[in-house]
Amino acid sequence: MPLQNDFYTPEGQGAYELISIGRFELEEGGVIEDLRLAVATYGTLNEDKSNAICIPTWFSGTHATWEQVYIGSGRALDPDKYFIAVINQIGNGLSTSPHNTEDPSIAMSKFPHVRIGDDVRAQEQLLREHFGIERLALVVGGSMGAQQTYEWAVRFPDKVLRAAPIAGTAQNLPHDFLYTQTLMDAITSDPAWNGGEYAANTDVAAGLRRHADIWAVMGLTTDFWKTEFWRDIPPLVEGLGWETFEEFQQNFTALIFGMMDPNALLSMGWKWQRGDVARNTNGDLAAALGSITAKTFVMPIEQDMFFPPRDCIPEQEMIPGAELRMLHSIAGHFGLFGFEPSYTAEVDAALSDLLAIEV
Amino acid sequence: MPLQNDFYTPEGQGAYELISIGRFELEEGGVIEDLRLAVATYGTLNEDKSNAICIPTWFSGTHATWEQVYIGSGRALDPDKYFIAVINQIGNGLSTSPHNTEDPSIAMSKFPHVRIGDDVRAQEQLLREHFGIERLALVVGGSMGAQQTYEWAVRFPDKVLRAAPIAGTAQNLPHDFLYTQTLMDAITSDPAWNGGEYAANTDVAAGLRRHADIWAVMGLTTDFWKTEFWRDIPPLVEGLGWETFEEFQQNFTALIFGMMDPNALLSMGWKWQRGDVARNTNGDLAAALGSITAKTFVMPIEQDMFFPPRDCIPEQEMIPGAELRMLHSIAGHFGLFGFEPSYTAEVDAALSDLLAIEV
Repeated sequence: MPLQNDFYTPEGQGAYELISIGRFELEEGGVIEDLRLAVATYGTLNEDKSNAICIPTWFSGTHATWEQVYIGSGRALDPDKYFIAVINQIGNGLSTSPHNTEDPSIAMSKFPHVRIGDDVRAQEQLLREHFGIERLALVVGGSMGAQQTYEWAVRFPDKVLRAAPIAGTAQNLPHDFLYTQTLMDAITSDPAWNGGEYAANTDVAAGLRRHADIWAVMGLTTDFWKTEFWRDIPPLVEGLGWETFEEFQQNFTALIFGMMDPNALLSMGWKWQRGDVARNTNGDLAAALGSITAKTFVMPIEQDMFFPPRDCIPEQEMIPGAELRMLHSIAGHFGLFGFEPSYTAEVDAALSDLLAIEV
Repeated sequence: MPLQNDFYTPEGQGAYELISIGRFELEEGGVIEDLRLAVATYGTLNEDKSNAICIPTWFSGTHATWEQVYIGSGRALDPDKYFIAVINQIGNGLSTSPHNTEDPSIAMSKFPHVRIGDDVRAQEQLLREHFGIERLALVVGGSMGAQQTYEWAVRFPDKVLRAAPIAGTAQNLPHDFLYTQTLMDAITSDPAWNGGEYAANTDVAAGLRRHADIWAVMGLTTDFWKTEFWRDIPPLVEGLGWETFEEFQQNFTALIFGMMDPNALLSMGWKWQRGDVARNTNGDLAAALGSITAKTFVMPIEQDMFFPPRDCIPEQEMIPGAELRMLHSIAGHFGLFGFEPSYTAEVDAALSDLLAIEV
């Protein structure tokens, strides 16, 4: 029986539709008999279906942040012009996930390993079968969404006209693998995690807290904390604000990660660690990235501590015609949450330029 | 009864002398009835006692790395010219520490909180009473050793002629506090830690492993891992090398931290989090640093992820006449281990220049 977790409801995340694409065979050998993807769409698909944008989600993320921070009338991601589909990644708590599946053969600890390539294949199938979309004006995603964006561009070159990977790499690197492992170990070391068989996500509160605390160190920068930038961030929950950095950690990072499902985070973490477009080209990263035909803007965040520009730029240089559009946020990787108008303005400018390029 | 831990023996760390300075009252209110400091000295004190150098140690560190990497004939820290005393910090496993004290009132979980200021007062007392040293040609230390170096310069301006804080700050910053907390939580979340009352450090292997794994992410940089720099590092234990980054993590970071005492690491971690020279000036950092009369070279490591130059430079600018000498290591903070001849050459050049300045 699925576990109840209100964080993942439409009330918690904003409206979405659960769309089944049926039986789905995973690259690692597992099968999801009834794969349901949680999709939130904005705008209207035009007649020739040429105005579709696909947005895959990041680790622990959902469509909510895209809706709240990135999509809007007059913005680059303009629902008045485009049909924008934010597709929640498999295992993120909204799409088929360990805690929400009604199939006992894949519930909780039995959930099969999922790959970035699985997500992209499932998204392609869904867009084609459900919406009749054969080409995408743009794929854009942040962090693990960037991993999926790169995978889209490599795997479906004829379908992706433009690609904008933000704050992520096409091939995961060892440091990032080790970092993600510390996040996962923080959860699995909690005895209440119990090998994945807990009764409620809140049972694993201690592990989720440690997981969140590591995020607070790597997702947010020394300058974010030093300048007390958090004073400018509105509370997540009314009345639950912060006067000290410890309170911000408690009522922001720990609060939000504490609402999530441990097995969902672990499923995504395993996937994140192994993102690698070179799996499509027998390990040859240059061949994989060299095959991209989408017009690509590579968009790292300058202050990012685990997807730093120095890891993104060498990939950009392997993609024909790709351009670097550096983003800036004092928050580092968590700049993705759009704390600063200057950051969202940079994103909008880059995506507007990219969408204006004829391809 | 003290716990046996061979890591902290002279066989494990190189020769040192345990020197008692008697009853010692701590800033937080605790008392160590018989405070013993583990001191390793190199060279000979000259007649007018003007050639003394004091080196305080870093988190988890001992005199061993200083002996192996930094001190040598013909080097800046030359035992042919100087009398060099490396004084292991309180609680580091060699000096009086939770696991090695014979006083049951402060053993293990009962060990009192120790401050950076306690270490510096104890070191000053030891050098004065035991060696008759009233002035230091140089205080130099890395990381928590830099914290102590700054404390020396602020607290004993008449005694410190020159100061060289490497890869550390005078006032600990929130990000660093949170980072250190993740290290400590990795240990205390291990049920075998048992509130500090374990029978052997190896009981806490799982927590020590997680602690080490977080170090591998923050102590070493993305570039260190990406370039496989670890291939050039000799094994810690003969025959226990590495062919993959996971094996390096296993046989280097996890191996060495796994030998240490959990309570020692926690004692140092608590101290590290609260390092702050402004405690001497009612919270006024500019006043504290402005009072320094030592000729000071501030020496951050450019790639350091938790004591980055952007946190060190503002402090340097508050110290009268202080100069910035940037160090470089692909390893980031763990560049302190001296993996690269270029790094040790930079340190030697800076310290030679500093020691050559007449003060």
